[in-house]
Amino acid sequence: MIRSAECKGVIYDLARGDHNSMALFYGIDIGGSHVSAGLVTAEGRLLARAAAPLPPRPPVETVVAVVRRLLAQMAPAGGVRRAGVGVASAVDLDGRARFAPNLGWHDVPLRGLLEDALGMDVGVFNDADCAAFAEAKVGAGRAARYLVLLTLGTGIGGGIVLDGRPYLGAGGLGAEIGHMKIVDDGPLCGCGRHGCLEALAGGLAIRARAARLLEERPDLAARSSLSTDFDVKAIFDAARAGDPLAEEVVAETARYLGVAVANIINILDPEVVVLGGSIASAGEVLWAPVREEAAQGTMGGPRPYVRVVPAALGPDAGLVGAALLASAVYF
Amino acid sequence: MIRSAECKGVIYDLARGDHNSMALFYGIDIGGSHVSAGLVTAEGRLLARAAAPLPPRPPVETVVAVVRRLLAQMAPAGGVRRAGVGVASAVDLDGRARFAPNLGWHDVPLRGLLEDALGMDVGVFNDADCAAFAEAKVGAGRAARYLVLLTLGTGIGGGIVLDGRPYLGAGGLGAEIGHMKIVDDGPLCGCGRHGCLEALAGGLAIRARAARLLEERPDLAARSSLSTDFDVKAIFDAARAGDPLAEEVVAETARYLGVAVANIINILDPEVVVLGGSIASAGEVLWAPVREEAAQGTMGGPRPYVRVVPAALGPDAGLVGAALLASAVYF
Repeated sequence: MIRSAECKGVIYDLARGDHNSMALFYGIDIGGSHVSAGLVTAEGRLLARAAAPLPPRPPVETVVAVVRRLLAQMAPAGGVRRAGVGVASAVDLDGRARFAPNLGWHDVPLRGLLEDALGMDVGVFNDADCAAFAEAKVGAGRAARYLVLLTLGTGIGGGIVLDGRPYLGAGGLGAEIGHMKIVDDGPLCGCGRHGCLEALAGGLAIRARAARLLEERPDLAARSSLSTDFDVKAIFDAARAGDPLAEEVVAETARYLGVAVANIINILDPEVVVLGGSIASAGEVLWAPVREEAAQGTMGGPRPYVRVVPAALGPDAGLVGAALLASAVYF
Repeated sequence: MIRSAECKGVIYDLARGDHNSMALFYGIDIGGSHVSAGLVTAEGRLLARAAAPLPPRPPVETVVAVVRRLLAQMAPAGGVRRAGVGVASAVDLDGRARFAPNLGWHDVPLRGLLEDALGMDVGVFNDADCAAFAEAKVGAGRAARYLVLLTLGTGIGGGIVLDGRPYLGAGGLGAEIGHMKIVDDGPLCGCGRHGCLEALAGGLAIRARAARLLEERPDLAARSSLSTDFDVKAIFDAARAGDPLAEEVVAETARYLGVAVANIINILDPEVVVLGGSIASAGEVLWAPVREEAAQGTMGGPRPYVRVVPAALGPDAGLVGAALLASAVYF
């Protein structure tokens, strides 16, 4: 099903041997459509990287086999201490993937299966928790002890770092910020509720908003470069170029994101709120209104120590964060 | 302005002298209309209590003088180690009352003023943070390490305990759960925004909802025992007695509270959510729909370890929690 030729190994530093004296950790990111893995130092430096696609709704055994093969491609001479895994799933404190709609998993004992297959200690976390930890340690929130991350993809994931440590909650199921309800009787969310942040500002919601405006607002549609086939990036690009329909889509999206950021600030009072995923590159057309709404919504007025910033680490944040969590033994 | 005769000292255990070998702490609760103070053991036992009313928008010097007089009434022979203060204000990590609308204060250096007046170390916290800590240590969440408290009075305060410690945020301004926006373009809140939880389920909002239904729904009003003059307790009492208008008010209020509790569970994954203030005694007419909405809104379904319960400590939670925070030196 997955052929070796599909793996993209990007081993680039191993030959130099400069890692031999370092403690090395595997970081693994299991998403809905592919697995990526890396060899990472305790300082968060990515020495090697490999990735492979996954079939839709893959059996966990398939994923474990892919992980094993990817790691074998980058195994260093001196061995690896531990592995950290970020997975697109709610993960409990025992490393079980509790519900992973994009993988089709329910209550999968991922940690045990991977420890058996890899023969080493493995920590399993939600992928956004990993990305948040990476951004706090070596990314956009470097040196911040209190950080909240929202990652915008098809849905919206969340990760929280408090006092320099990952915040997982009493049962490991915290930081589901995408499912904070902010509009009563709002649009239907993938989780079955109405008005969650994800249903208002996730990728699917942004595209649906554009499609609706194209249909309902002929005045804007006539002046828009967007037609029937567009992704979120195209909408952001068009808004930056002054497309009035795309600007409307972005403004409405930004307002909901700003409300969510204000709620986060009012509840958690962090130093940094990081927005990652497709939105990180959206530019000021989105960022200015997000920051404005967040500032207006902060109790007592804007706080000088709170920054709202784009993610810095890009798509490798998850695997780097997973490895850093393994290095710090948060499991 | 405040006469000594108005103080209600309720000193009840001091004469027994059984506290002499214990470390004792003052707990002080500064609300919008009165100050209460207590002598508290490190185990949270209240040995003595005194209270005095405050004039509207009292100068901080007045409050400091009242505190000093109340403490003098209960000073034990062996002295007191430290004092903890809960105040109806956002409080920063330096013990400054940043914004206290009910006291009319803005950026008041309360900790420094009290330390000068009392001659001892003083910790100053938000009052709901104190109540949350008390409920976690000796109240409804006893033995819980992850607890969130909402206190319903005129407004809605919030307090968070994570991993057994008070969660204050990067700047001390966290846990403003009453100002989580949950209805876009909802009713105006005292904070100036729209659709905050406080504007939907605080005491003022509950009374406004009843008044609106009395006017707009003559069918319900005709069968209601509520007339023009009622408080929140009267509404809860009427709902328990089967008053259809009051039932409608409670049902709508409960739904918003349930949404907020679900948001809290999804973000913080606590073991206990405590609802205190007037609501704590509202009975199943309110609690059943709150729990139902919270369970439905929890990502992945209800969690067996999460309890939604009424506060156990009553109006002394704030001063007991303040003393316990002082005993644990969280400042």
